[in-house]
Amino acid sequence: MLHTPEEEILRRVAAVQEAMRARGMDFALVVQNADLYYLSGTIQQSHLVLPAEGEPTLLVKRDVERAREESPLLRIEEMGSMRDLPSRAKELGLSGSVDVGVELDVLPVALFRRYESLFPEASFSDCSGIIRSARAVKSSFEVNIMRKAASVAERTILGLQDVFKEGMSEVEVAGHLEGMARRYGTSGMIRFRGFNQEMVPAHVMAGPEAALPSYLDTPLGGRGMTPGVPQGPGERVIGRDEPIIVDFVSPVDGYLVDQTRVFFMGRLPDKMIKAYEACTEVQSIISAGMRPGVPAGEVYEAAVEYMESRGYGDNFMGYRGKQVHFVGHGVGLELDELPVIARGVDRPLETGNVIACEPKVVFPGEGVVGIENTWLVTEDGAQRLTVSDERLVQL
Amino acid sequence: MLHTPEEEILRRVAAVQEAMRARGMDFALVVQNADLYYLSGTIQQSHLVLPAEGEPTLLVKRDVERAREESPLLRIEEMGSMRDLPSRAKELGLSGSVDVGVELDVLPVALFRRYESLFPEASFSDCSGIIRSARAVKSSFEVNIMRKAASVAERTILGLQDVFKEGMSEVEVAGHLEGMARRYGTSGMIRFRGFNQEMVPAHVMAGPEAALPSYLDTPLGGRGMTPGVPQGPGERVIGRDEPIIVDFVSPVDGYLVDQTRVFFMGRLPDKMIKAYEACTEVQSIISAGMRPGVPAGEVYEAAVEYMESRGYGDNFMGYRGKQVHFVGHGVGLELDELPVIARGVDRPLETGNVIACEPKVVFPGEGVVGIENTWLVTEDGAQRLTVSDERLVQL
Repeated sequence: MLHTPEEEILRRVAAVQEAMRARGMDFALVVQNADLYYLSGTIQQSHLVLPAEGEPTLLVKRDVERAREESPLLRIEEMGSMRDLPSRAKELGLSGSVDVGVELDVLPVALFRRYESLFPEASFSDCSGIIRSARAVKSSFEVNIMRKAASVAERTILGLQDVFKEGMSEVEVAGHLEGMARRYGTSGMIRFRGFNQEMVPAHVMAGPEAALPSYLDTPLGGRGMTPGVPQGPGERVIGRDEPIIVDFVSPVDGYLVDQTRVFFMGRLPDKMIKAYEACTEVQSIISAGMRPGVPAGEVYEAAVEYMESRGYGDNFMGYRGKQVHFVGHGVGLELDELPVIARGVDRPLETGNVIACEPKVVFPGEGVVGIENTWLVTEDGAQRLTVSDERLVQL
Repeated sequence: MLHTPEEEILRRVAAVQEAMRARGMDFALVVQNADLYYLSGTIQQSHLVLPAEGEPTLLVKRDVERAREESPLLRIEEMGSMRDLPSRAKELGLSGSVDVGVELDVLPVALFRRYESLFPEASFSDCSGIIRSARAVKSSFEVNIMRKAASVAERTILGLQDVFKEGMSEVEVAGHLEGMARRYGTSGMIRFRGFNQEMVPAHVMAGPEAALPSYLDTPLGGRGMTPGVPQGPGERVIGRDEPIIVDFVSPVDGYLVDQTRVFFMGRLPDKMIKAYEACTEVQSIISAGMRPGVPAGEVYEAAVEYMESRGYGDNFMGYRGKQVHFVGHGVGLELDELPVIARGVDRPLETGNVIACEPKVVFPGEGVVGIENTWLVTEDGAQRLTVSDERLVQL
């Protein structure tokens, strides 16, 4: 089992601390699973007490032995109850009128109020931006994990060719892929930062079902099995001559990689083939645009402009009135990381960003084609981490 | 695809409104997926504006057509941006110094602050308790869904006998079960209310791996595939003569059912067999105790007392120092619903509660045995929804 090495954790902690000092934040109190894993290498039920300078301390409710086994941090202590937090924090210098960063974008109000009452003199600010920005720049350790996740994604998606039989429903195919992926080593868990966002691993959708808009912040949604989880594969039997889109998230060693490929039975209409070609072409424009220093919004606008010039303005990333205004999203420990390649984003891309780009064309009532790869931004341009063949696959 | 009928929604809304009036709450603004589904039958990105009296209105960001198709509510309107919420809410009477209930146990601070700034004169209180209490009492419509989920759980767990081969790892078996469950119709999504709580569907763990404590609020955790998701099945090959515990959550039509059974290859040590017998015996005590009006804590204490008398005081629900202090948890749209059968809970059980009870005995370094069924509390006592055979299964 892969553990996060000490030097990796030290580098991450140092980067976050530097940003904390720049903002005048005295401490960060980190509690969310993904952030905890990033800064400590463990997600046992814990509070990470991180001073702006000096060593962090992990106070663990359960399980402290596992936390010690999993995390390279030197200071890992048991803390049975949250009532003990003020006294334990005080020993670490966190007391009185300090400025404490907490993860305000994910912390529920009730829990935050508990912290306010435990530290009545402290003033709280948001440390999520700092942590999210640090997490947006991946190390080579992280990129190597993501390459491994990419190879599992590839093996899983292409595995569709082995399990597919005419007459299968979307969810039957998805079940095969999800089971396969677990046997290839995925953790089975897809994490989001955004409130109410959630995803099943294998979005296998065919024909008109793929073109349904949904509550997800994605160009396609799928019908799902119930209005209670209205996303992903449904019970409709996959037909001939329609695109079967497979959007698969591969969670390996804590990290996610996102990839989409298109399959078909019979003969795909020319309209779909042409739209797919436009998606691969715009992918070239996007990947050429993803360079350090380039504002993410510029890459998005270039993609939209190209697709409009090809006549897909009303179908790119959803159909008119139902479009989403992004074409790429950061991936890592969560599926909705920074940066986002979206309308109006001035933030420049950085070396080390890892971004899933998913140009897709949606024809309501007919189907969806498109492609998605996960890319690493480097000094020399974008490098593809999801390396499998990009041709449409006939079944 | 099963939709929630109108009369079901009307009854739920009326129950919540009655509780709102008793607390002097003028409006509830409901946004969390599970609560939205409960009160509207859809989880499209929405705000449910629920007055203490009169008809609720669903303001939908995306997708309004799907919301109209899925929900029996009469007032479903599109609302493109959250900036429009105050004016739209005002049309519905929500303006000025009203008392507005929001879901403070799940709402992130940053989002809550947005609502505070959109409604500067309103005073906000917590409506989660009201909704959670209403949700704790299941209707016959809901119980019927849960019976269907139970039959999928049963089919999946017993399916282990068909796929198991000596030499398989925990995660290989889990992959087969998870894939199978999807093909039998699960949605693939397990929802929790608790911050940082999460679960992969098939917890297949054998021998010492099952006995590892974890960050989950459960008696057993498993090693998992990575410290990033340290739960559930890992890569260890399942051995002979050790208990293989399979804890499976079956999500069907939005509702969850939770069940655990024990398998083995070869010969199970007498110690494990005896402990398993104690679990089925204490299950009888628990199920006999689960009657309307009985404080949940009493049921828990009776279970602990029995297990102590049988010599399992140090191994029941975890081993000494690592024990969790509950034996059952409400299930429904989420896995951590009310009521909880736990230490110190005075709240009396009610007709219509659905509770997963999971007496388990943990021997560190050796293994875990136990049983879990999902029960319905009725006037005539507890009724088992997960109906499969309870014998230890030899592979």
